[in-house]
Amino acid sequence: MTQSRFLRACRREAVDATPVWFMRQAGRALPEYRALRERYGFMEICYQPELCAEVTLQPVRRLGVDAAIMFADIMTPLIATGVGVDLVDNVGPVVAAPIQSLADVERIRPLDPAADIPYITKSVQLLKQELGTTPLIGFAGAPFTLAAYLIEGKGSRNFLKTKAMMYGAPEVWHALMQRLVDLTIAYLQTKVAAGVDALQLFDSWVGCLSPHDYATFVQPHTQRIIGALTGTVPFIHFGTNTATLLPLMQNDGADVLGADWRIPLDDAWQLIGAKAIQGNLDPAVLLGPWEYVRTQAADVLRRANGRPGHIFNLGHGIHPQTPVENLERLVEFVHAFEHKR
Amino acid sequence: MTQSRFLRACRREAVDATPVWFMRQAGRALPEYRALRERYGFMEICYQPELCAEVTLQPVRRLGVDAAIMFADIMTPLIATGVGVDLVDNVGPVVAAPIQSLADVERIRPLDPAADIPYITKSVQLLKQELGTTPLIGFAGAPFTLAAYLIEGKGSRNFLKTKAMMYGAPEVWHALMQRLVDLTIAYLQTKVAAGVDALQLFDSWVGCLSPHDYATFVQPHTQRIIGALTGTVPFIHFGTNTATLLPLMQNDGADVLGADWRIPLDDAWQLIGAKAIQGNLDPAVLLGPWEYVRTQAADVLRRANGRPGHIFNLGHGIHPQTPVENLERLVEFVHAFEHKR
Repeated sequence: MTQSRFLRACRREAVDATPVWFMRQAGRALPEYRALRERYGFMEICYQPELCAEVTLQPVRRLGVDAAIMFADIMTPLIATGVGVDLVDNVGPVVAAPIQSLADVERIRPLDPAADIPYITKSVQLLKQELGTTPLIGFAGAPFTLAAYLIEGKGSRNFLKTKAMMYGAPEVWHALMQRLVDLTIAYLQTKVAAGVDALQLFDSWVGCLSPHDYATFVQPHTQRIIGALTGTVPFIHFGTNTATLLPLMQNDGADVLGADWRIPLDDAWQLIGAKAIQGNLDPAVLLGPWEYVRTQAADVLRRANGRPGHIFNLGHGIHPQTPVENLERLVEFVHAFEHKR
Repeated sequence: MTQSRFLRACRREAVDATPVWFMRQAGRALPEYRALRERYGFMEICYQPELCAEVTLQPVRRLGVDAAIMFADIMTPLIATGVGVDLVDNVGPVVAAPIQSLADVERIRPLDPAADIPYITKSVQLLKQELGTTPLIGFAGAPFTLAAYLIEGKGSRNFLKTKAMMYGAPEVWHALMQRLVDLTIAYLQTKVAAGVDALQLFDSWVGCLSPHDYATFVQPHTQRIIGALTGTVPFIHFGTNTATLLPLMQNDGADVLGADWRIPLDDAWQLIGAKAIQGNLDPAVLLGPWEYVRTQAADVLRRANGRPGHIFNLGHGIHPQTPVENLERLVEFVHAFEHKR
């Protein structure tokens, strides 16, 4: 298992071919996922280990990716502690009672893994049996992104309520972040104990912040999560729109940093120094013709230049309308790519 | 007039105090604007020079900003040529028949300024009389942002239809951009002929692109617009989320580049070289308490460090819920700020 390309790349060891997986690879771009979703709801799949394993395995079987990522939603641990969240198709999470005050924060109770998420441990164990040598990634939403959902109530363009709380009621903000950090640590520790091979923290929305605000309101909390998991399995820290945050994020303790398409891969790698890097094709490129996909994927690979520590991925999750043929060909292309050194 | 702080800063000449104005300063953050909007529709205000002048002057009177920006919508020139666009409150422009094909593109006819936008010339002339020594900025939407509205039909998070056209039907994309460029040039030339003192191109959404895609699909078109206006009045090129695009944008011909809060002002200035810079406080900061606004504004000013060529502004438009007192105090603060050299 430790010989897998993906795990070797996380540790910046030499590999026989660039490892590749895709964020949201288990999802609506796959016809077999859509078929299953006609019969089962999103959370129903999360709660039933057999279904969770099936959905997690689908992209491994069809695409031949180098890692599986366990199917879940970033809101899963919050839902598990009783926070009212509705996962609405084509909208995302909708929070029943958005957080406005310290009293609201104090109603978020700690995660009790044995009681709240027994299905997680079962799903990991089942997946580990079925995956063979393919490593399994467990993920969690980063506290900024979780907090933003809890405060805004749903997705947002400008995160104004979130920022207004950060600036105007920092004690409420930090109390919320602390609860989310505790919950996330318990959640990720459960996944590690059950046997996942790597962890990824998804900070999809952190790129709305200035570097100052990241350092002041987010970074100490991210560092506490990563610090609590250090020494277990490789840790990937992913955000979008982080070109100017990467020099800060490189101090947060992760082994691998994600980068999106807004920054050329080699520029991003230079900013983060001696770490592995994951990325960074624009998932929208996969809506174009294969010839365009190929030239853009080749550009990413040329910028990585065969240096140990590159995990090929997208800069964000696969869009549901992505032609599955482009995904299949892209995996083949990445694996066959020969670096001219 | 050429002695105004704002115009001197555009030319990187020394100023007695840092000039300041705000994107969307004429808008819903001002009670006098909201009062007027109870009686008149958005386009009604655009079409009636007296109303347009009144709304444009409101922030100059109340806030004491160093420049006025003529009230309009980025869709104004398209609406003037008969493209069906509805400006929906709290949503933005909604396009009746989104563009999908070359035939759709060919239905966009050229702008005939005398027939289509006589009210623009009248509004500029009226404003020039009333403004005295305060300079007047005329603006236009940049072709990428206009094209994105026309293709998506409305605002978008991921611009997937827009990118799919760029990648899959580049001949349709470039034909659309060419028409938008012609239209924008005619629109801006009309404003210059009428007497505006500076121009600003708003590329609010360009930051969703990779540097490669900006260079391939957008930059030649932006350059043609700016080139056509070179030698007239100072030209400001503004986009959000452009930290990694600034090194390209600095070659597009503008005198001043905008930057948003995601990149520290001094880092942005270093990327763009010998140009003036406009920005870059996060408008969300203005939803916080004054003490926080003050520290963040001081940080921007310290990073500018009194070098000639800084125009203080936000990194994007004022949010409607901004307390007007914060705007009033911010203008005073910027004007009174003493640089320690």
